[in-house]
Amino acid sequence: RVDGGRLWDSLMAMAEIGPGIAGGNNRQALTDTDREGRLLFQRWCEEAGMVVGVDAMGSMFARREGTEADALPILIGSHLDTQPTGGKFDGVLGVLAALEVVRTLNDLGIRTRRPVEVVNWTNEEGSRFPPAMVASGVYAGVHTLDWAYDRTDAAGLRFGDELERIGFKGEEPVGQRKGHAYFELHIEQGPILEEEGVDIGIVTHGQGLRWVEVTLTGKETHTGTTPMDRRLNASLGAARIIDRIEAITRAHGPKAVGAVGQLVFAPNSRNILPGKVVFTADLRHPELAALNSMAEQVKQAAREVAAELGIGVAIEEVGAFDPTAFDEDLLAGLRAAAARLGYSHRDMVSGAGHDACWVAKTMPSAMIFCPCVDGLSHNEAEEITPEWAGAGTDVLLQAVLQAAEV
Amino acid sequence: RVDGGRLWDSLMAMAEIGPGIAGGNNRQALTDTDREGRLLFQRWCEEAGMVVGVDAMGSMFARREGTEADALPILIGSHLDTQPTGGKFDGVLGVLAALEVVRTLNDLGIRTRRPVEVVNWTNEEGSRFPPAMVASGVYAGVHTLDWAYDRTDAAGLRFGDELERIGFKGEEPVGQRKGHAYFELHIEQGPILEEEGVDIGIVTHGQGLRWVEVTLTGKETHTGTTPMDRRLNASLGAARIIDRIEAITRAHGPKAVGAVGQLVFAPNSRNILPGKVVFTADLRHPELAALNSMAEQVKQAAREVAAELGIGVAIEEVGAFDPTAFDEDLLAGLRAAAARLGYSHRDMVSGAGHDACWVAKTMPSAMIFCPCVDGLSHNEAEEITPEWAGAGTDVLLQAVLQAAEV
Ligand SMILES: NC(=O)NCCC(=O)O
Ligand SMILES: NC(=O)NCCC(=O)O
Repeated sequence: RVDGGRLWDSLMAMAEIGPGIAGGNNRQALTDTDREGRLLFQRWCEEAGMVVGVDAMGSMFARREGTEADALPILIGSHLDTQPTGGKFDGVLGVLAALEVVRTLNDLGIRTRRPVEVVNWTNEEGSRFPPAMVASGVYAGVHTLDWAYDRTDAAGLRFGDELERIGFKGEEPVGQRKGHAYFELHIEQGPILEEEGVDIGIVTHGQGLRWVEVTLTGKETHTGTTPMDRRLNASLGAARIIDRIEAITRAHGPKAVGAVGQLVFAPNSRNILPGKVVFTADLRHPELAALNSMAEQVKQAAREVAAELGIGVAIEEVGAFDPTAFDEDLLAGLRAAAARLGYSHRDMVSGAGHDACWVAKTMPSAMIFCPCVDGLSHNEAEEITPEWAGAGTDVLLQAVLQAAEV
Repeated sequence: RVDGGRLWDSLMAMAEIGPGIAGGNNRQALTDTDREGRLLFQRWCEEAGMVVGVDAMGSMFARREGTEADALPILIGSHLDTQPTGGKFDGVLGVLAALEVVRTLNDLGIRTRRPVEVVNWTNEEGSRFPPAMVASGVYAGVHTLDWAYDRTDAAGLRFGDELERIGFKGEEPVGQRKGHAYFELHIEQGPILEEEGVDIGIVTHGQGLRWVEVTLTGKETHTGTTPMDRRLNASLGAARIIDRIEAITRAHGPKAVGAVGQLVFAPNSRNILPGKVVFTADLRHPELAALNSMAEQVKQAAREVAAELGIGVAIEEVGAFDPTAFDEDLLAGLRAAAARLGYSHRDMVSGAGHDACWVAKTMPSAMIFCPCVDGLSHNEAEEITPEWAGAGTDVLLQAVLQAAEV
């Protein structure tokens, strides 16, 4: 078993970097605090005897050699970046648990046949630069490197430039590091495990996502002097589309979720009808056909509302991943490991996207969830217990021992 | 008659300060460019032989003495601040037309019995610091000076601090300068005069306004992992309230206007349900009872929608002015002046608020409108012709000659 206290201390030390405004973290991708977090992680990895490589997307691979140098490694990890108002565990737990696994192997003097690599994937959250999971997406060949470099944040800064600025545009070609298997431990970010008092979630599937960005073009005119029937009212358009998104989601059954978390008015003055309104619908479903239907209907609704109001509309998918199934054999191994350790477990579907969803395209992959308080995530008040974190990491250790072959 | 070419040159010179992004201006109140515009105006006033005083709200009064020093002056003016994406004429025309009137009096060697004061009222637009017309409001005793100083912009900067920073927190107590009458020339900001081919609008009334700021408090949670029935969805709440604002406005008849031009999500991330959504309903009606009814119904709708969704709601009126009637005698004088000059004219109601609406509480006041292209205002593409500007200024000159007594 791992050293839960040491893991917790590392989690708390990382949480010192990029503190939020309400007890959580704001360590968004490719900011100075992301850099600081990466440097701390690198130091810890080197202290644990690993050699750290960085690829051209800034993803970090800390390698512990195996007895057979040429064997494909076991990859374990997650991400260190956070939401603007993020928690201390979303992603961070998966990276530092992976580090804790290596520290434990070191403590016990265990040599594995296969190398083990601890990975920190760049920009998993996608909050500063959409889409989410962009670096693991390039790793899996879903996006090109150039396309990823051209993503911009709200201030218009380019991903590629910011990556270079923080000194993490690595030399290694993306996707060069092949793997035999990938495991990712993550907090559930939902309420099920805690409510049912279950220690470990065995993630069989990840649901799919579509980020549909809608840009409405109204006419900037005076709110006081422009008669109602002469308005090209983009704010009213946005309101009606958001209401339609809710209805479309509800119509796709209890598994569907959909909402708008990001919206910007321009010029955003109380007495000007907005000339431009941009927002993104976040649509998710575990089944591909239903997911595509939701996205189609939302686009259609946006076009209909725009036509009714006479305003302009442009639609772009700024993020998308299909539902994923994880590797059956690895899942069976995880269930057995949890049982052996005496932890209760259950199968579940991930509501969030994870780097594992892309990595699964390149090697057998699986995920382990641990509970989080109230299912709360993407909130600074996100919380877990040291025991939950330790249990998940114990299962991760067992998975590595088995896959890396002692 | 005034020198229309000189007036136009001054308008174009002022428009050089604080250029916008699309041919208009961004010279918002108490910014560095507002300061620059004020300094240019001050220089022009001094060159025209006037003495400039500044009150504690930063409003500027440029005085041309009359033959009778103790006689109450005639005040003429408007505002030099603009919207973030504002035009070159909204407000600016009224200030520079007033300056042109004095220049013409100088050219013609005309001495008036009463002094004439050209006024630049601070922060008429209210886009950076709500409410609109705040300095004329303090002048009229509607707001206290301390309350006005405590207004903040989106970055949290205080009005009082910013006024001091740009060097325009004057020594004069606000409201010290009494007047015998006030005239304000402004562009119509609506389409009627141009469409009807009328030269001059005689503004008999100004409609009233309520700015109802709604703050919705949701729960920041993950858009992918939070089941639909566990959401406290403030973005959906905002959407439904905006749709209700439209319906409430329509239900108040063809004179009512209402919309939302300003709205902010926090933390504004695609995969976080917003914890907070703040927006302002801009509601207007020429009749007080209908205006109050609109505001009441919007507040009620906000509370109802919030209750349905289980989200928090706080409501604050961040701006308000009642419908105003301008002075009958002054209006009759304006009609006569327009007719004498051979300009077509018609009575009209102002859809926008103006400093004259507050000043009317302290002295007989009246307004003159000139047409603007397509009724477009609060838009960088706002346009007028030199002829329209000249005609309006000719009427203003006649009004001053009569009221200041030659
Ligand atoms: N795990 C997680 O929150 N990932 C961010 C991408 C998503 O919104 O699902
Ligand atoms: N004239 C003008 O646009 N004033 C700003 C205040 C308002 O929105 O009516």
